Amino acid sequence: MEELKPHLANSLPLTPLGLLERSATVFGDCPSIVYNDTTYTWSQTYRRCLQLASSISSDGIARGQVVSVVAPNIPAIYELHFAVPFAGAILNTINTRLDARTISVQLQHGDSKLVFVDHQSRSLVLEAVSLFPPNTKRPPLVLITEDDNGDDYQATVDSKFCCTYEDMVRRGDPEFKWIRPLSEWDPIVLNYTSGTTSSPKGVVHCHRGIYNMVNETLIDWSVPKQPVYLWTLPMFHGNGWAFTWGMAAVGGTNVCLRRFDAAIMYDLIKKHGVTHMCGAPVVLNMLSCSPDNQPLEKPVHILTAGAPPPATVLFKTEALGFVVSHGFGMTESAGLVASCAWKLKWNVLPATDRARLKARQGVRMGGLTEVDVVDPKTGVSVKRDGSTLGEIVMRGGTIMLGYLKDPVTTRECLKDGWFYTGDVAVMHPDGYLEIKDRSKDVIISGGENVSSVEVESVLYTNPAVNEAAVVARPDEYWGETPCAFVSLKAALTTKPTEKEIIGYCRGKMPHYMAPKTVVFMEELPKTSTGKIQKFLLRGIAKSMGSLSCRSTTINGIQSKLNT
Amino acid sequence: MEELKPHLANSLPLTPLGLLERSATVFGDCPSIVYNDTTYTWSQTYRRCLQLASSISSDGIARGQVVSVVAPNIPAIYELHFAVPFAGAILNTINTRLDARTISVQLQHGDSKLVFVDHQSRSLVLEAVSLFPPNTKRPPLVLITEDDNGDDYQATVDSKFCCTYEDMVRRGDPEFKWIRPLSEWDPIVLNYTSGTTSSPKGVVHCHRGIYNMVNETLIDWSVPKQPVYLWTLPMFHGNGWAFTWGMAAVGGTNVCLRRFDAAIMYDLIKKHGVTHMCGAPVVLNMLSCSPDNQPLEKPVHILTAGAPPPATVLFKTEALGFVVSHGFGMTESAGLVASCAWKLKWNVLPATDRARLKARQGVRMGGLTEVDVVDPKTGVSVKRDGSTLGEIVMRGGTIMLGYLKDPVTTRECLKDGWFYTGDVAVMHPDGYLEIKDRSKDVIISGGENVSSVEVESVLYTNPAVNEAAVVARPDEYWGETPCAFVSLKAALTTKPTEKEIIGYCRGKMPHYMAPKTVVFMEELPKTSTGKIQKFLLRGIAKSMGSLSCRSTTINGIQSKLNT
Repeated sequence: MEELKPHLANSLPLTPLGLLERSATVFGDCPSIVYNDTTYTWSQTYRRCLQLASSISSDGIARGQVVSVVAPNIPAIYELHFAVPFAGAILNTINTRLDARTISVQLQHGDSKLVFVDHQSRSLVLEAVSLFPPNTKRPPLVLITEDDNGDDYQATVDSKFCCTYEDMVRRGDPEFKWIRPLSEWDPIVLNYTSGTTSSPKGVVHCHRGIYNMVNETLIDWSVPKQPVYLWTLPMFHGNGWAFTWGMAAVGGTNVCLRRFDAAIMYDLIKKHGVTHMCGAPVVLNMLSCSPDNQPLEKPVHILTAGAPPPATVLFKTEALGFVVSHGFGMTESAGLVASCAWKLKWNVLPATDRARLKARQGVRMGGLTEVDVVDPKTGVSVKRDGSTLGEIVMRGGTIMLGYLKDPVTTRECLKDGWFYTGDVAVMHPDGYLEIKDRSKDVIISGGENVSSVEVESVLYTNPAVNEAAVVARPDEYWGETPCAFVSLKAALTTKPTEKEIIGYCRGKMPHYMAPKTVVFMEELPKTSTGKIQKFLLRGIAKSMGSLSCRSTTINGIQSKLNT
Repeated sequence: MEELKPHLANSLPLTPLGLLERSATVFGDCPSIVYNDTTYTWSQTYRRCLQLASSISSDGIARGQVVSVVAPNIPAIYELHFAVPFAGAILNTINTRLDARTISVQLQHGDSKLVFVDHQSRSLVLEAVSLFPPNTKRPPLVLITEDDNGDDYQATVDSKFCCTYEDMVRRGDPEFKWIRPLSEWDPIVLNYTSGTTSSPKGVVHCHRGIYNMVNETLIDWSVPKQPVYLWTLPMFHGNGWAFTWGMAAVGGTNVCLRRFDAAIMYDLIKKHGVTHMCGAPVVLNMLSCSPDNQPLEKPVHILTAGAPPPATVLFKTEALGFVVSHGFGMTESAGLVASCAWKLKWNVLPATDRARLKARQGVRMGGLTEVDVVDPKTGVSVKRDGSTLGEIVMRGGTIMLGYLKDPVTTRECLKDGWFYTGDVAVMHPDGYLEIKDRSKDVIISGGENVSSVEVESVLYTNPAVNEAAVVARPDEYWGETPCAFVSLKAALTTKPTEKEIIGYCRGKMPHYMAPKTVVFMEELPKTSTGKIQKFLLRGIAKSMGSLSCRSTTINGIQSKLNT
């Protein structure tokens, strides 16, 4: 057998890019994207992506360079998922909820060569670019507008922008030959998971990893041909868990929307016959708690991840006709790697038991990806007893290449052949894992990851602050919100109020990252070696209940108002 | 980006083997295999495969050695699709319809180290092994029985067999750690596409190729979770188009059956609530033309390939409630690489137009695989005009590594980065391809490939035969049957009859390969350079109609009886 080696005909690089080429043939005249009054077909989308890629390429963007986009779930960001890698470049989607400083850090760290900017993020990105150090090269900006009707419009574009998005489409060559990766390990995306500190974490995925994720996720969720997919998961969040490319594989209709609002979502579900959607539990919350909620005419499959869906939210959402699946993944894993695969026999259980089972993160998603819970010191699997804590580790075909320009952090989390997630979990006897805590102190608020360390580092810059520790406070709506425990310096003449501390943070970070609660303490609880005992603070935050409570100064003991 | 390289956590070899491990967790107590009165669950199947792998391994089978199985679609052959590669070995499934000589050639060519033998193929395989040259090492044989109830049975096994299949399961270690491929390019299967000649074509596929096929085929056919799959496609035919492993990916129920008979199929469909099945058009023919046919209670998805389904068969099958999909693949491509992806707008067309469209082989199945029709001389794509003939070429992630011990044939069909199939087709303006002829003279009879060259070489061994050429004769039931055109030697005193020629062939090859029609001619039509003009003979065979006609001696002109 030794003479049988890989050859050109069987070793085409694994990449999701061919999916669009195929969908242009198979689903050519079927809708690819629907947004307000605009509908594209798959052959139009293919053509537009080739045109864009042609323009990106002829504008001098070379293989392996980074192209960024700051936009909500509008058609342009979908198209760029193909157009940018079609030009050989690396797509960097930026969270529109970030502040200018963070965006500036990410653009500089990624060495972005071109930035597509949604018109609503116009001033945000202009400010971000203005924060570049003097004498550094700033990337050209392309404005994505919604009223661009041709050359006349182009003339009116702000001089800060080199052109409009539609102009790039128009001047591109629809016969452009898209650029294949030289290797399936070539980078295709750069996704920042944080960025306010001086060391942003830029997750880099390769073509092979994304292709593997597309396959695993479509099969695991049993996505049929031509679903109607509502984009209630931001595409800038881990590329919408790879469903950006996945929808091309199945010829789905991408229903785009600018704002996640219950009334809008229900309207689009009805209008377009939505069959599938994804979102953090906060989306389920919106759908189920909104005064606009209404029983569905036909079932809609909704896949949620980012945090376990609370039982009440689950009940309400399912009662309306949504079929909820729950999964688990990270930006580092290119999408979901575990899902709470539902067993038919569970259907007969009482609702609370069903909710408890469904809130578990579940089992490995495909035959390739492996997920385990191990003792972080020894790497040995924990007992399948549902109570022994361990760290979630994963490996397979979808784990990132690493963090950009950060070999130390990359090495730290990639060890012994596994990716160490930092999430603490238990393994149940049936092989389903369940997250219990996060060792890296990540707070997930409305589907957004907030690094407690980053918030603390901002708090420490406040001259009045002596000590600071930030933990998650449970929240019915947002899932969690950042809650700061602060001790003030002794010799202060005027002590800052909670509102002032919050305001201080908001001036230095995106609003969603700033604490929503500040608890003042004389001294933070510490171990004998002087380490802040965060588990105690988490206990206090948990007992405070949802955000409707207001915090106040407490002296070593927990106190609540308004609950 | 250059510092970001593949690492252990993201470069696990692509292999279908993990699918079973996962299904044991996710679908552990759901049925995996149903056969007569036996039902296994996925956790039982996983356990049995580990036990088998353990026994195979402890019997001395080493990584990369070939293990064969001669069996119809019974549970054992399904289990061996995991158990053999779990032991690091290469699975070689052998067509039960072959004759002893052919099986002997394949076992010797593949250097098989262990052979699993269904009890109904007992004497066939014993004869095959007896045909090994003297003083050559013969592989040990394992008998697969259906009445093996424990140790007592073992004692009764024929001394020609080392043990029974169930004995191997029983003595195996269920905690066996299955052996991962060292590389995803390691071989996993060896499938012979022919073998009566001295140069058998043994197609070798690697773990990566099979893994890719499993993903592409499940997504393309939109196979949902937990389908009930009826095994009407032999697993020894290209591993049942990879659905052997595919069913583990979706936790399906494998309904096994020993014999393809319409009454049995309808019975099983009803009894087990079958949702999916595959088969050559001859299976559709059985289902639709049988007196046992009956409208289905709920739709059954049936995927057919191997030959275009004739319009009448399509009408009848669909009228009964089957949802027919049509695809195209070869043993060399590990399963289907093109499928006639159905467009909703075609539903409104007249039935004959629908049948015509559905009989096309279609478009590339996934985003990775590419299929084209090219001028075989230049490699340039033919016009998309539905009439220019060209050769089908394919590339992607599922093409074989090559033919075992046959670098010349391997090189001949793998050129310029493509696999040249030898099939002649046209490309329609909508990008769908349609087969028009086979340049390699393959006759497809009842889903089995028959090499006309091989049949001719046997005919030439008959002392009365002067010239011989074998072509396909269209057949309503079998699709095609081999039709021989023969000229006899001049000085014969008694001329052989058609029946005698057929009988002669049957003595030297599997029955399905032997001609079903023999046409005697004074001289076969030839080109000026002396090459037999097969296209003329095909024309004659075609005009003879289906097999109900009987052939007779004709003198250069075509003649038909009974039509």
